[in-house]
Amino acid sequence: MYYIGIDLGGTNIAAGIVDEEGKILKKGSVPTGAHRHYTEIMKDMAQLSLDLVKECGLTLDDIHSVGIGSPGTPDNEKGMILYSNNIAFLNVPMREEIQKYIPKPVNIENDANCAAYGEYIAGGAKGTKISVTITLGTGIGGGIIIDGKIYTGAHHAGAELGHMVICVDGEQCTCGRRGCWEAYASATALIRMTREAAARDINGTIMKLVNGDISKIDAKTAFDAKRMGDSVGAAIVDKYVKYLAEGLVNVCNIFEPEVICIGGGVSKEGEYLLEPVRKLVYEKFYCKQVPMPKIIPAVLGNDAGIIGAALLAKQL
Amino acid sequence: MYYIGIDLGGTNIAAGIVDEEGKILKKGSVPTGAHRHYTEIMKDMAQLSLDLVKECGLTLDDIHSVGIGSPGTPDNEKGMILYSNNIAFLNVPMREEIQKYIPKPVNIENDANCAAYGEYIAGGAKGTKISVTITLGTGIGGGIIIDGKIYTGAHHAGAELGHMVICVDGEQCTCGRRGCWEAYASATALIRMTREAAARDINGTIMKLVNGDISKIDAKTAFDAKRMGDSVGAAIVDKYVKYLAEGLVNVCNIFEPEVICIGGGVSKEGEYLLEPVRKLVYEKFYCKQVPMPKIIPAVLGNDAGIIGAALLAKQL
Repeated sequence: MYYIGIDLGGTNIAAGIVDEEGKILKKGSVPTGAHRHYTEIMKDMAQLSLDLVKECGLTLDDIHSVGIGSPGTPDNEKGMILYSNNIAFLNVPMREEIQKYIPKPVNIENDANCAAYGEYIAGGAKGTKISVTITLGTGIGGGIIIDGKIYTGAHHAGAELGHMVICVDGEQCTCGRRGCWEAYASATALIRMTREAAARDINGTIMKLVNGDISKIDAKTAFDAKRMGDSVGAAIVDKYVKYLAEGLVNVCNIFEPEVICIGGGVSKEGEYLLEPVRKLVYEKFYCKQVPMPKIIPAVLGNDAGIIGAALLAKQL
Repeated sequence: MYYIGIDLGGTNIAAGIVDEEGKILKKGSVPTGAHRHYTEIMKDMAQLSLDLVKECGLTLDDIHSVGIGSPGTPDNEKGMILYSNNIAFLNVPMREEIQKYIPKPVNIENDANCAAYGEYIAGGAKGTKISVTITLGTGIGGGIIIDGKIYTGAHHAGAELGHMVICVDGEQCTCGRRGCWEAYASATALIRMTREAAARDINGTIMKLVNGDISKIDAKTAFDAKRMGDSVGAAIVDKYVKYLAEGLVNVCNIFEPEVICIGGGVSKEGEYLLEPVRKLVYEKFYCKQVPMPKIIPAVLGNDAGIIGAALLAKQL
């Protein structure tokens, strides 16, 4: 049997046909058009999936089930998205909508959890008992896999690792609290820190890198400046690494996972990011008598969400 | 069958004979004498247990197993305490020592985990799928129960909730990091904050409460001062409540438990502490679409550790 995996994002809908082992046979994407009514978005999610089934030379008889990774808080029992602020969903009957077009079981899960599950099924966390996947993007997504199952809390509202406060009364977070890890170690936070530093160093390397257009600063800019020997860039990167590491030490002290996979845009820096992060985490991890949790790049990239969503049926 | 539960503390060894339902038939305690060689301490643990068995009119034939809650990092596979800094243990063969006197299966677990498991078996978290027990004492102990099992991480080094940094670069913690929750919301932290405030308000209510002897300030003093209408005491309590709540919101966002049981010395303040804590936690919890985690006092007090240790065999 094959599985349809759909990764619903704010910008694009990505989908794939996935086999039992977590291999993607074929994948594709269409724009989300997040401003549209949910019925329109879900029609496109279904249509993309049906097209891929056809392109694989399969029929719906070959498909076991559909899995969807969505932003927000899903309720898989009811088949609904209770709430999302990324795409504005409130009590959206996602399963019902998809089943209008694809009469198969539909499982719904948070997108960060799907990515973590994908890394567990076919990526960097394969074969582990406990793993955590951290996605450094617009926010910080966290997914926790314990004994082959996604940990979500009593009503699917847990695993919000990005909304762990690491600085009481610190930076304002989108969730309403101040000082969340996400406000210090997401790509968005890194960009904010880089722009603030650039504004204070108007003739510096960072401003030269973006031809004086501060709005062009992205999550790569500070790293690029540091690579060029710029001390301002180096200071930003060091600060970012420190905040990222502090949150990761918390994750280690709380979960003691075998593996932490780091994904999302910022993780593209690879060892240039991870090597100093690892050093700090290992210095500060509470227990020195056990093997250190491995900190590695998420290996599946955007495919993790598709694979994890597709194989949701396997863990239920 | 009956179970022996031993709660090894820095000051006292407490033990009890416990039935299948988690009821204590008889309990007792002896001083730990923590400075002594571990063989002496464990001999006393065993002797206390054997005395209790006899006092219950039982023999070892009635005993299923022994469970021990110990400070530090246990390795139940090896039957050892890998490390503890509270009582100075390094690779101590606890199971072997106890079995010299009591030839029964011996399970070893961290003391905070035992307390959490006791609350799950017979206390405030009974019947829940996910619960967390927080002990506000010398440090902050955390115990996490998921689906009837103690969550400990890949090698028993997780669930160190007290060593979650909530203020990067904040107060020095005994673990070497700065800004751990424990450094702000343990009884020790509350006493430190009270003493600091008293030293600045030498003629105030707090100093009167301790007859001018700052060393007599304990975890109750600020609460007592607040109850008397003292603004300095009120400010300390408010600050303490805030830090306690910030950590609890983190716990909620990470685990989304059904119940959080609050134990340890400071929890004796009851609703005077918990009511304002609950208010802050519910204001700041990330997800508003699900039932709020209940925040309640741990109901078993010191018995939780004995009961949880005794019935460790049940969860394995």
